[in-house]
Amino acid sequence: MPTVEFFYDFTSPYSYLASTRVEEMVRRAGGEVRFRPFLLGGVLKATGNRSPIETPAKGRHMLKDLERWARRLGVPFIFPRTFPVPSILALRCALSADKHGKLVPFTHAVFRACWADGQDISSPDALAHIARAVGLEGAALVSAAPGEKESLVRSTSEAVERGAFGAPAFFLGQEMWIGNDRLDFVEEAVRAARGA
Amino acid sequence: MPTVEFFYDFTSPYSYLASTRVEEMVRRAGGEVRFRPFLLGGVLKATGNRSPIETPAKGRHMLKDLERWARRLGVPFIFPRTFPVPSILALRCALSADKHGKLVPFTHAVFRACWADGQDISSPDALAHIARAVGLEGAALVSAAPGEKESLVRSTSEAVERGAFGAPAFFLGQEMWIGNDRLDFVEEAVRAARGA
Repeated sequence: MPTVEFFYDFTSPYSYLASTRVEEMVRRAGGEVRFRPFLLGGVLKATGNRSPIETPAKGRHMLKDLERWARRLGVPFIFPRTFPVPSILALRCALSADKHGKLVPFTHAVFRACWADGQDISSPDALAHIARAVGLEGAALVSAAPGEKESLVRSTSEAVERGAFGAPAFFLGQEMWIGNDRLDFVEEAVRAARGA
Repeated sequence: MPTVEFFYDFTSPYSYLASTRVEEMVRRAGGEVRFRPFLLGGVLKATGNRSPIETPAKGRHMLKDLERWARRLGVPFIFPRTFPVPSILALRCALSADKHGKLVPFTHAVFRACWADGQDISSPDALAHIARAVGLEGAALVSAAPGEKESLVRSTSEAVERGAFGAPAFFLGQEMWIGNDRLDFVEEAVRAARGA
């Protein structure tokens, strides 16, 4: 079955938008999704790319664009008070949750907490609470997070080596797409791979 | 009738892609398109934005992305040997062509020459040839082009003042969208404005 790797960072609003629909789109095309947390800040640094918000006119347009996408997809959307979101602890928790088979539900819960509910996902307490809500031992998960430091560095480096320069990044074998707005191309490619 | 202003520069491949479909999309939604040549280099300078090709990984992905879009839209696509394309003379010629009621056919002919046929559109001879093909006096048009210098500066400044940071830029009144990949949102907005 064609497998789409979905690289995301919780600080990336377009990753949140993609997270609300990537599984459905890939599944209906006959594929499956592998969730891959990575650190967008590391990707930008390694590639020399910049966040859209570093260009003021681009940042203003991004806010409008995000609202338009959220309306189209019918998903709640709140821009967090602190942006970029300090997401490193949440990402390490996600990798830790993966060891308990809970990466996907934990990921969705963190995205929702940040981008739908306006919670501060840099807080260990908030992350422990989210973890408990998906059936994990919250405090234990947060305590184990520092042990995932190297794993997060590795997934970030891997994405950069494979060509990523932003988030979300999607891979189907050697093929790469960047951006929530390229998910329809990803779906087409899964369909083509399925037929091939 | 809702009027979409389409700001474009011949050096912008995503403007070329948009030019192949913006009229059909806006027309079927019940609106009309006003063609607005502007200088992307001036927009980038004024806003502090950068061309995607300044980030190597982004530039490589852009080439793939353009090929994917051209395939989807069923339009020919050749990446020019010189990029960014020195487009200032062609843009001034377009503004001059506008005075003879030929802005739209001249624009399409220049986009095709550059992005479908691989011609050098910085050449006065090539531009004169293109102008003749759409019923203009070629040499006269090119000679008149320097007189459009201020007009091109003004349209560029206007786009920047209204929030543009890249190309293509679309406006429907106060609303702005940037990118060929937002044309479906533009179409929706025209439909909504038409119904309102």
